[in-house]
Amino acid sequence: MSLPICRIKIINGNTCQPMTININTSAQSVKFSNTEIVTVQPQTGPESIESFYDEYLAIPGILEQIILDTDSDAFVLACWGDPGIEAAREITAKPVVGIAEASLYVANMLAAKWSVVTTLHRVRDMVEKTVEKTGLTARCASVRTTRLSVLDTEQDRTATLDVLTEAGNLAIREDGAEAICLGCAGMSGLEQQLEQRLGVPVIDAVAAAVKMAESLVSLDKTTSKRLTYRLPERKEIKGYASHYQAENFCR
Amino acid sequence: MSLPICRIKIINGNTCQPMTININTSAQSVKFSNTEIVTVQPQTGPESIESFYDEYLAIPGILEQIILDTDSDAFVLACWGDPGIEAAREITAKPVVGIAEASLYVANMLAAKWSVVTTLHRVRDMVEKTVEKTGLTARCASVRTTRLSVLDTEQDRTATLDVLTEAGNLAIREDGAEAICLGCAGMSGLEQQLEQRLGVPVIDAVAAAVKMAESLVSLDKTTSKRLTYRLPERKEIKGYASHYQAENFCR
Amino acid sequence: MSLPICRIKIINGNTCQPMTININTSAQSVKFSNTEIVTVQPQTGPESIESFYDEYLAIPGILEQIILDTDSDAFVLACWGDPGIEAAREITAKPVVGIAEASLYVANMLAAKWSVVTTLHRVRDMVEKTVEKTGLTARCASVRTTRLSVLDTEQDRTATLDVLTEAGNLAIREDGAEAICLGCAGMSGLEQQLEQRLGVPVIDAVAAAVKMAESLVSLDKTTSKRLTYRLPERKEIKGYASHYQAENFCR
Amino acid sequence: MSLPICRIKIINGNTCQPMTININTSAQSVKFSNTEIVTVQPQTGPESIESFYDEYLAIPGILEQIILDTDSDAFVLACWGDPGIEAAREITAKPVVGIAEASLYVANMLAAKWSVVTTLHRVRDMVEKTVEKTGLTARCASVRTTRLSVLDTEQDRTATLDVLTEAGNLAIREDGAEAICLGCAGMSGLEQQLEQRLGVPVIDAVAAAVKMAESLVSLDKTTSKRLTYRLPERKEIKGYASHYQAENFCR
Amino acid sequence: MSLPICRIKIINGNTCQPMTININTSAQSVKFSNTEIVTVQPQTGPESIESFYDEYLAIPGILEQIILDTDSDAFVLACWGDPGIEAAREITAKPVVGIAEASLYVANMLAAKWSVVTTLHRVRDMVEKTVEKTGLTARCASVRTTRLSVLDTEQDRTATLDVLTEAGNLAIREDGAEAICLGCAGMSGLEQQLEQRLGVPVIDAVAAAVKMAESLVSLDKTTSKRLTYRLPERKEIKGYASHYQAENFCR
Amino acid sequence: MSLPICRIKIINGNTCQPMTININTSAQSVKFSNTEIVTVQPQTGPESIESFYDEYLAIPGILEQIILDTDSDAFVLACWGDPGIEAAREITAKPVVGIAEASLYVANMLAAKWSVVTTLHRVRDMVEKTVEKTGLTARCASVRTTRLSVLDTEQDRTATLDVLTEAGNLAIREDGAEAICLGCAGMSGLEQQLEQRLGVPVIDAVAAAVKMAESLVSLDKTTSKRLTYRLPERKEIKGYASHYQAENFCR
Repeated sequence: MSLPICRIKIINGNTCQPMTININTSAQSVKFSNTEIVTVQPQTGPESIESFYDEYLAIPGILEQIILDTDSDAFVLACWGDPGIEAAREITAKPVVGIAEASLYVANMLAAKWSVVTTLHRVRDMVEKTVEKTGLTARCASVRTTRLSVLDTEQDRTATLDVLTEAGNLAIREDGAEAICLGCAGMSGLEQQLEQRLGVPVIDAVAAAVKMAESLVSLDKTTSKRLTYRLPERKEIKGYASHYQAENFCR
Repeated sequence: MSLPICRIKIINGNTCQPMTININTSAQSVKFSNTEIVTVQPQTGPESIESFYDEYLAIPGILEQIILDTDSDAFVLACWGDPGIEAAREITAKPVVGIAEASLYVANMLAAKWSVVTTLHRVRDMVEKTVEKTGLTARCASVRTTRLSVLDTEQDRTATLDVLTEAGNLAIREDGAEAICLGCAGMSGLEQQLEQRLGVPVIDAVAAAVKMAESLVSLDKTTSKRLTYRLPERKEIKGYASHYQAENFCR
Repeated sequence: MSLPICRIKIINGNTCQPMTININTSAQSVKFSNTEIVTVQPQTGPESIESFYDEYLAIPGILEQIILDTDSDAFVLACWGDPGIEAAREITAKPVVGIAEASLYVANMLAAKWSVVTTLHRVRDMVEKTVEKTGLTARCASVRTTRLSVLDTEQDRTATLDVLTEAGNLAIREDGAEAICLGCAGMSGLEQQLEQRLGVPVIDAVAAAVKMAESLVSLDKTTSKRLTYRLPERKEIKGYASHYQAENFCR
Repeated sequence: MSLPICRIKIINGNTCQPMTININTSAQSVKFSNTEIVTVQPQTGPESIESFYDEYLAIPGILEQIILDTDSDAFVLACWGDPGIEAAREITAKPVVGIAEASLYVANMLAAKWSVVTTLHRVRDMVEKTVEKTGLTARCASVRTTRLSVLDTEQDRTATLDVLTEAGNLAIREDGAEAICLGCAGMSGLEQQLEQRLGVPVIDAVAAAVKMAESLVSLDKTTSKRLTYRLPERKEIKGYASHYQAENFCR
Repeated sequence: MSLPICRIKIINGNTCQPMTININTSAQSVKFSNTEIVTVQPQTGPESIESFYDEYLAIPGILEQIILDTDSDAFVLACWGDPGIEAAREITAKPVVGIAEASLYVANMLAAKWSVVTTLHRVRDMVEKTVEKTGLTARCASVRTTRLSVLDTEQDRTATLDVLTEAGNLAIREDGAEAICLGCAGMSGLEQQLEQRLGVPVIDAVAAAVKMAESLVSLDKTTSKRLTYRLPERKEIKGYASHYQAENFCR
Repeated sequence: MSLPICRIKIINGNTCQPMTININTSAQSVKFSNTEIVTVQPQTGPESIESFYDEYLAIPGILEQIILDTDSDAFVLACWGDPGIEAAREITAKPVVGIAEASLYVANMLAAKWSVVTTLHRVRDMVEKTVEKTGLTARCASVRTTRLSVLDTEQDRTATLDVLTEAGNLAIREDGAEAICLGCAGMSGLEQQLEQRLGVPVIDAVAAAVKMAESLVSLDKTTSKRLTYRLPERKEIKGYASHYQAENFCR
């Protein structure tokens, strides 16, 4: 039996193209052979997401990548924080996977307690809220923030690796972490080196999400349209292109 | 001693103008004499917010009303769900109050248990998440959704009153509610009639938020810029007007 | 339109008169012009509340100040811990606000995480239970206790300021607090100096409660008499003056 | 080896003497042979506790029964709600057991889920808060309130039995209770008849607390004086007899 | 690139062979082409797991299937309840996936709220504890138990389908479920028919777990050996075959 | 009145006989005069329980000690973790008490916050799960693990005392513990010396459980057979002696 092709569109939440390339490289390296990966970035939104403001301005552009899509079988939201994921699940029946939730599920299957190691100190609250939203706060040993901006993680891989090693070691030694979740899509590709340095599983969220998306497609599952994730009601939406109007959605 | 003028800008989360007028009427009727209320609606976004999709598309327009503002002392986000409130707190140091949180604080001071009575059944999850975000889930007797769309609440006040009376009575009799929070800005102005019908306190969220905003201004408090709510980092934000760029913010 | 007069009675939970004066000064300085503030202390009870024992002995005297009152529009319980507040809400339909809950609501509108800085180390459990009762434990970065007794906070303002500065800085640097709630009525009046020293919002609980009380009166709200906060049943109450008997209550 | 005598003072929280007699009868029937039980009622306070107001007015009188005691080895607070128990633990090092907590511990050792069946509907919130304070909310199937006043439970045993049977059956059939905790000291003595009618364990809280008190004395344990339950600070306490002043405490 | 072979051993928790066959059929139908599935049952333990007693007696036999294994890349514990999963993670570094946790992760990616529909009424507490252990209780609309024994689910597929349809409909209509998790490995293979009848996603836990196991192997992840899931300490284990002794483990 | 004899069988969870003797000594020293204590160990299972693997292999042997028993009135599971306790409650109606739960109930009646001081670092997760299962996590100041194996606690009492003193002091000074629960049956007998060293109540779990078992027998209570703890269903159980088959149970 030959597997049908599974097309997954990964949407980098940031408009920074080098990160899209990096995300794509990571995803390509873990996909199953019959999976096709396309990685895109929004037309609109911030170069990088490092605040609630950035996140909210990114969401319309992220959703647009789903609205305009015609041939993907599943979508991955590639920004730790899973921005706009509930809306994404409303506008399509195809599976939508967030990299944050995916990485936490994987961590939960590998370790009794794990920590999230991530970017700037200011995102602590965002990250904690994301963990809380999945319901897995009791399994989270800590959130370790760093001095790394999102773009730093792309531009200086050596320094990034060092900062993540230090933060990971603190999480392991002081907080009791037994695995590490990388809390930013920009950190994709560093997981193997970090794993060697830290001696515990290190989870790349993009890779985790690709696996979850492949899984959902393979199981032939679609998002429940029963209540919460029904298609949005039809109504006037001012200042957005016509494809944002619910009556124009491909279903 | 004469009080200084306190200018509060209320931002209807919906782009539906009649609701702006209704919200304004409610707010004017409860404000202190030295308060000036201006009620606006976003330039962009959905006519009404009834899904996560609607909410996320509304947020950039809501934030713009804060970004472009020069003379208000505080802001009220007038959509139950407090859309984008964390971002609003990042882009200004002036107090920002959400009508959902404000109404829950008021309810908590009046009753041991309260219910939220609101619009379409599909918003149950959104409303529960909002209650959870304030931390007050343990005090919430129930969320009672109805067949009312947001625009229904504006257009047929008599039917709305009847539907809310029925839902409120169920909340009181079956769920143990001892007060009712109206879970939609469009329901503003019905609280007194409902209170007479139901025999328990009924809280108009817009009115509650006006009071909280007046309180914060009167206390001369500003949002903490210590960490989470710092100004957004400066960076390129594609596809948004230049006033959305953090380096152009009035501070 | 001229506002009606709003009369708020603030009940210092302690029988220490200098604290009553201090509380009154703070309250007068933040009230709206049409508000009248009267600050009283119980006839019976401990000089200061620093244990569960103190708190329980204070409550009958606190409640008496409500029972005997004829002309106030709202009551503020001015002891962090909100002693007897559920009973206070039973014996009157007029709004009753606790300074602890009020300060936490204000903190929640200004900061993602806050700490409570308070008196003697032994009150940690009392303070944590108070935060838990409001439901806001998840937003509380820490409770920082000190070597200050309640009366210390009144008698040596300079030393108090120094101790609070140290505790506040620890809360900010080690616990992630982004705002500070002063966890004792005796600390009223120090909030501005502390705010300058600490660089984050510092919330005086008395001031916060005055604003909440003004808000509830302005909204014309009364406590729900539906179930939990109904008037107490009529019955014999031994060893208390006749005004404590429910059948003698003014309603 | 002959056991030393263990003297337990049970303090009926209500000033109603017939209930004291009833409590005493229940306690005598379950005590070990070397235990001496003395059951008393406060000199001051309400005839019965059915509201927060009643509870707070009862506490000073309850505490007085501990303060004036010289020869008991342990104390039982015999009012479901364990009024003033934290203060009781401050003013003596001898073990203090509340009947509510004791009954929940016993229930937890007998059943996966249990319900509390209790008096007037208005006490629901009080009872839920008591369950929450022990931390056992997740094991509580429901709180079933009734039309029974506290005094009803004493005065009409047949009707009480019928009402409790009905409420217990509802808890079992509709809420999934597998055991029933009787949520009022006045219900002591009905547990065996109810157990026969309901077919599940029915726990008399007074009996449970006698066993816990015997246990703590037998283990030679005393309350921790490390921090929270230290003796109250010495200070002036207005309007209370001199034995209430901490400096006069027997230790 | 051709995928390496991934060998997954599925361990039916029950010793009932027809269920092993059924589980295997389901697993084979969803696996990726390069996955090899072997489904086994323990040599010892109960025919079916319907109580804590059954579960605990099943665990040594389940663990033996891992201990004696030499060539699998991952293990699936095929009994809803994930019996012994923490121990399984101690005795091998290869990924171990429980069907309960896997099904909940899948449900969480498809629906805002879901219910578990399962066997005999007596397992309610076991099922609730399993949901709690994953941390996802807040997303669980309800647990719906039925009159079906585990063996019933194998032996009468038509009746099983009818009972599950009824329970599923109740979960959807009365409890707000938007997806259904089948809470027993014996129900594998009914998910498509049920999905058509119920109109919401129905998740077969075995299929979900196969996907999770494939994912973990594909990501080249192993269980953290940092602390909790280290190999068991070497010591005498009485009454068990020598392969159960930790010093004989293949690593 | 002379008390009837109460026979309690204590089941050491470990197959290490010296620990059985130690447990028995502790139990004999706290029992009431009419109590008869028999302490046994399983025929099968690990010498000591220090991992989930050990725990699960111990449970069948522990349960066998209940199944084969004919004359005990209650059972105590003497391994902190209460292994298999739900199953134990299914197979007999006689009360079953776990030493972990018993020690936490006792601690809760003596202190506002307590810590568990226990063996190897790897058991932290097991201990935290046990505390969580009782529902008392909010009262737990910390879990302090040590370098002590279970057998160490038996074999070198002096070193054990020193290690526990150090860990206890850290719990008190750094975590805010006001009492200490000894988290291993092997630590029985050290509680008095530790109490003198630490200055806070130290609870021996075995002693606590003896008291709880005496209490339940004295109250004439049996485990609820309503639903969760019903006798196991009759079915084939492969590889276990015939007395393990439910149809052979004495009832």
